[in-house]
Amino acid sequence: MHDHTVAVVGASGYSGLELTRLAARHPELRLVSLFSDRWAGEAAGDRLPLPAPASSLRYSALADAAGLQAEIAFLATPAEVSLELAPKLLARGVRVVDLSGAFRLEDGGLYPRWYGFAHGAPAELADARYGLPELERARLRGARLVSNPGCYATATALALAPLVKSGLVEADGIAVAAMSGVSGAGRKASEDYSFCEVDEDLRAYRLGRHQHVPEIEQTVRRFAGRCGPISFVPHLVPLRRGILATCSLRLARGAAAADLAAAWGRAYAGEPFVRLLPPEKVAVKDVVRTNRAHLGLAVDERAGMAVAVSAIDNLVKGAAGQAVQALDAAMGWDEALGLDLLGG
Amino acid sequence: MHDHTVAVVGASGYSGLELTRLAARHPELRLVSLFSDRWAGEAAGDRLPLPAPASSLRYSALADAAGLQAEIAFLATPAEVSLELAPKLLARGVRVVDLSGAFRLEDGGLYPRWYGFAHGAPAELADARYGLPELERARLRGARLVSNPGCYATATALALAPLVKSGLVEADGIAVAAMSGVSGAGRKASEDYSFCEVDEDLRAYRLGRHQHVPEIEQTVRRFAGRCGPISFVPHLVPLRRGILATCSLRLARGAAAADLAAAWGRAYAGEPFVRLLPPEKVAVKDVVRTNRAHLGLAVDERAGMAVAVSAIDNLVKGAAGQAVQALDAAMGWDEALGLDLLGG
Amino acid sequence: MHDHTVAVVGASGYSGLELTRLAARHPELRLVSLFSDRWAGEAAGDRLPLPAPASSLRYSALADAAGLQAEIAFLATPAEVSLELAPKLLARGVRVVDLSGAFRLEDGGLYPRWYGFAHGAPAELADARYGLPELERARLRGARLVSNPGCYATATALALAPLVKSGLVEADGIAVAAMSGVSGAGRKASEDYSFCEVDEDLRAYRLGRHQHVPEIEQTVRRFAGRCGPISFVPHLVPLRRGILATCSLRLARGAAAADLAAAWGRAYAGEPFVRLLPPEKVAVKDVVRTNRAHLGLAVDERAGMAVAVSAIDNLVKGAAGQAVQALDAAMGWDEALGLDLLGG
Amino acid sequence: MHDHTVAVVGASGYSGLELTRLAARHPELRLVSLFSDRWAGEAAGDRLPLPAPASSLRYSALADAAGLQAEIAFLATPAEVSLELAPKLLARGVRVVDLSGAFRLEDGGLYPRWYGFAHGAPAELADARYGLPELERARLRGARLVSNPGCYATATALALAPLVKSGLVEADGIAVAAMSGVSGAGRKASEDYSFCEVDEDLRAYRLGRHQHVPEIEQTVRRFAGRCGPISFVPHLVPLRRGILATCSLRLARGAAAADLAAAWGRAYAGEPFVRLLPPEKVAVKDVVRTNRAHLGLAVDERAGMAVAVSAIDNLVKGAAGQAVQALDAAMGWDEALGLDLLGG
Repeated sequence: MHDHTVAVVGASGYSGLELTRLAARHPELRLVSLFSDRWAGEAAGDRLPLPAPASSLRYSALADAAGLQAEIAFLATPAEVSLELAPKLLARGVRVVDLSGAFRLEDGGLYPRWYGFAHGAPAELADARYGLPELERARLRGARLVSNPGCYATATALALAPLVKSGLVEADGIAVAAMSGVSGAGRKASEDYSFCEVDEDLRAYRLGRHQHVPEIEQTVRRFAGRCGPISFVPHLVPLRRGILATCSLRLARGAAAADLAAAWGRAYAGEPFVRLLPPEKVAVKDVVRTNRAHLGLAVDERAGMAVAVSAIDNLVKGAAGQAVQALDAAMGWDEALGLDLLGG
Repeated sequence: MHDHTVAVVGASGYSGLELTRLAARHPELRLVSLFSDRWAGEAAGDRLPLPAPASSLRYSALADAAGLQAEIAFLATPAEVSLELAPKLLARGVRVVDLSGAFRLEDGGLYPRWYGFAHGAPAELADARYGLPELERARLRGARLVSNPGCYATATALALAPLVKSGLVEADGIAVAAMSGVSGAGRKASEDYSFCEVDEDLRAYRLGRHQHVPEIEQTVRRFAGRCGPISFVPHLVPLRRGILATCSLRLARGAAAADLAAAWGRAYAGEPFVRLLPPEKVAVKDVVRTNRAHLGLAVDERAGMAVAVSAIDNLVKGAAGQAVQALDAAMGWDEALGLDLLGG
Repeated sequence: MHDHTVAVVGASGYSGLELTRLAARHPELRLVSLFSDRWAGEAAGDRLPLPAPASSLRYSALADAAGLQAEIAFLATPAEVSLELAPKLLARGVRVVDLSGAFRLEDGGLYPRWYGFAHGAPAELADARYGLPELERARLRGARLVSNPGCYATATALALAPLVKSGLVEADGIAVAAMSGVSGAGRKASEDYSFCEVDEDLRAYRLGRHQHVPEIEQTVRRFAGRCGPISFVPHLVPLRRGILATCSLRLARGAAAADLAAAWGRAYAGEPFVRLLPPEKVAVKDVVRTNRAHLGLAVDERAGMAVAVSAIDNLVKGAAGQAVQALDAAMGWDEALGLDLLGG
Repeated sequence: MHDHTVAVVGASGYSGLELTRLAARHPELRLVSLFSDRWAGEAAGDRLPLPAPASSLRYSALADAAGLQAEIAFLATPAEVSLELAPKLLARGVRVVDLSGAFRLEDGGLYPRWYGFAHGAPAELADARYGLPELERARLRGARLVSNPGCYATATALALAPLVKSGLVEADGIAVAAMSGVSGAGRKASEDYSFCEVDEDLRAYRLGRHQHVPEIEQTVRRFAGRCGPISFVPHLVPLRRGILATCSLRLARGAAAADLAAAWGRAYAGEPFVRLLPPEKVAVKDVVRTNRAHLGLAVDERAGMAVAVSAIDNLVKGAAGQAVQALDAAMGWDEALGLDLLGG
């Protein structure tokens, strides 16, 4: 019990807080250090409720993270920071689970367009394993660098991949409207995300430009063998946590509703964190503060289209929870380890 | 001034309240009676702030509405009630603006499937004029029975019709994800719409089955000459008022972003209530409590798709405001009459 | 482990749901039956995430609860139901923790005024032990009938009792303004608690008439020896969970801020669930989904008054969590048993 | 019509936006200039819906406000800015309505303690007229410098002043718990007021230290002849607009509920913006976006206390609306001028 030391870097953001909570209670992990410039010097127990001895840990400055002493590091840092930090940690033998986008795109050439920087760590990028266990579990075992999926990418790829793979839907012309709670924007002082601006409002943003687009396409393509360009529209909605992705697909000729459902059924049989439901039962409320994904499917034969809806908590299955699940997979542990107490 | 008498039937629902406010301040209208079982006997001024003399009107029982004494009646009643009441009022020479779906679908044979009842007033249905002035203004002049569009149908048809008409997008494979505030569900005692169930939640509902679907297709087809079946997914989001419709369309071969924008520009030049904006500036917050529609367009050439976003207030441009605008058009008045004071 | 069988009666209300979650994970308890008319026949795992074997329990009708087979029963039922049910269960040797107000007021003669019914179970009322461990722990040991405090009463009495006991504040003229999230009204279909009515609104209710008033006064008087009548004003605020009670007290002559803080310090030293903070750090957000109470004190020497603020989760420390804590105390277990995993 | 030119300084804050809307539609005013550093150079019509010609005004930099060309200036600026600017404008003959606290406290010696600065404009302070027409109308006529009350001060003083004046309540030991929507904190980029931090939270702040405290006491004392120190606790609640103030008062010996109600009735008879209601009918929702104050009174004879609740919109009756009302009074116009179209 608690044999593996772990550090959380970027511990004061919303994902970092969730990671801290999870790491402090994971039966195989021992949380030994926390890094956050914002809270440097403070005791963790003053910032969030934690069991001892984690509660008495003190936050260290981010600048010291490269020298951290732990077997495993979770990086909940901006992509540019992770890109610098991960190679240093890996070189020192630290196993890294990175929650940023720094190691998500196999084709490093995509980074300038979607992330605004050139990727300077091609070797690490080649070694990184994408941490979406339900779709690519086999690649995770033993991984030294796990690249944790984006929140929208998780919700969307879980919905799309088995359907595209089945050939029952067209692989192009896919349109996704995804809605996220405000914590998806991260923790920051910004008028745009102030209560008065967000409450009672609703809007789309980054239409066709969101950095999770190439990630979704890559995952679907890797899992299903093909995927056309996806039209992806994220929306900001006035709730704190949760994502709902509504994916519209054109049915392939002759595809029947039952076949699509069966494709999901095959893909997710036995998965502890995926639950298939009637689409009108898929609700953000039921997945918030859990590592579950709820999926539902409606086939509109009149319109020749299918709609897949997918709900997750952006901070758990879309970030910290999935990071723990992927670490569990990398270490060869039960993937529910440390996550089974989350129950809404 | 105030020469035309008007009644509001169904005055205690959310749309009825807005109608009451607007009718009481419209320079050509004189509000003379209000019908609501819930508030029967109470003074209107005790329920909402109104100028005199409207404030001293008392609500009458719905059962008395068939005998109402007014030149014009707004019906904010369920479709089944409107279906019974409108013919009686028309027969007595009352001009009717109906906010329900009872007279929206030209093809009466669609009612059983989408509304759950057979339509028993074919003559009135044939005479009804659909009240979406920006798309079908010419038909409204002199109308005796105005059928006011549905809230989702207004937001969606305004976005789609000019694009489909232009031939720059495919007329089939259209996918719409629309999000509505909770007032769209009407005013009722229901656990489903209780604060604790709705707040911090997000879900899709009536996938492929919403009664506004045939209405949208009919409007687009009438305006644009064609429209394939639309995949329409409404969502319930935790805000009180407002609709955002995100419409995904496949570009026709060779279509350019500027051409699509020009199609909207032509359609809405000079329209006082339509504003074309960059899509990320289209926000529910800016249209709530106004009769405006804000529209924005993003062309994703990589994906070969266009996304049109459209925002309205479901209770104003999606209900009471548009009803006033359509009445203005029917009477030959300036369409902004009685609406120009709404300003957010 | 899991040696003591337990039933939850009234399992589909908000408190009942929390009790079900807690009972299913408590190390000494084995959840064996659930009663709810609303969900009769359904599996618990379809309604909320639960570990096996609790997840496969099916809800039974409330009418069958009198014959329940368990060592312990939690009653999350209306006071009138508890008043009938508790004596039957006690007679059969079942230990009862009642979350209603049915057994809270020692003076049975107060029931008609505050609860609207005459109390017909005086023997059980005399035997009941009020379950606020921090104030009256000694009375709980071995209790057969635990009467769980009201949510407002918990928040308020925790703040007031040590201060009144200290003599540093006047025992009369106490004014409490308490604010509650909407789940405090219970789970019901009601227009008053619909999202559209509650969101963006704020109001006081039951001024001077709330049934927790005599309960607060009784608790303070029992703990502190004296308590004048309290002016108590509850408010409904647009959030789902949580209570903040702001208590204004007149300082006794010569009382100093440090003395008041010391009185709290003495009362709550070593309490696992009470945390004393600067008053501006007391926030509902930090106690939601935990069994903690956060208390803060401001002394306004200019005005000769003290203000004590107290925050709890109305469904946990104000209901289900405290019920478990009180059961733990009654059974002689560590009071944190089954509650230590709640951590926000 | 529109004969008097007016400028709004600080036009991009929440109060400034409301002032701009009101000034642009006021029948006696002609809005001629707007000052905001944030939006300098932009057209007003791009920021909010305005009628022509106001919509084509462009925002100027704040630094140019001292030279503004208008008969009247509304200052929606921080107290320090108003303190500098108002004397310059007054010296140039501009009539000033200041919405900050810079000229609210007759006793300039109170500024260091409550506002953190020494007051350097004693002559203007002596000339300023406090703009709460319902309590001090006579002083406003002809005022050159109107000092607009604070939002909390307005809600609280309206409730307290007539009661204290009547002698039916004790003038000391008054405790006020006031709750404000988030717009009360102004428009700023701050993590503290971000949606994720505020939503679903509830807390008290500035206990006993809020700068509206001396203002409330001064107003009550001026109107009622006496007022003890008030214990005032503001709370931040998750809504955008609105204030509810709950004031607890000790009844004087022999005071009866009807007498207190009569005191309010006498004070507010004929007031167009004050409405007396049963206390449980006083709701923020009914006053938002209006210039009204709703007041309700509960007398708890058991506790020997009275509770007065008061609701206003912090941005209208608590800021911009009252500023217009006070200007109307200063100019000798009907106080409802420019405000009668606000109707919720």
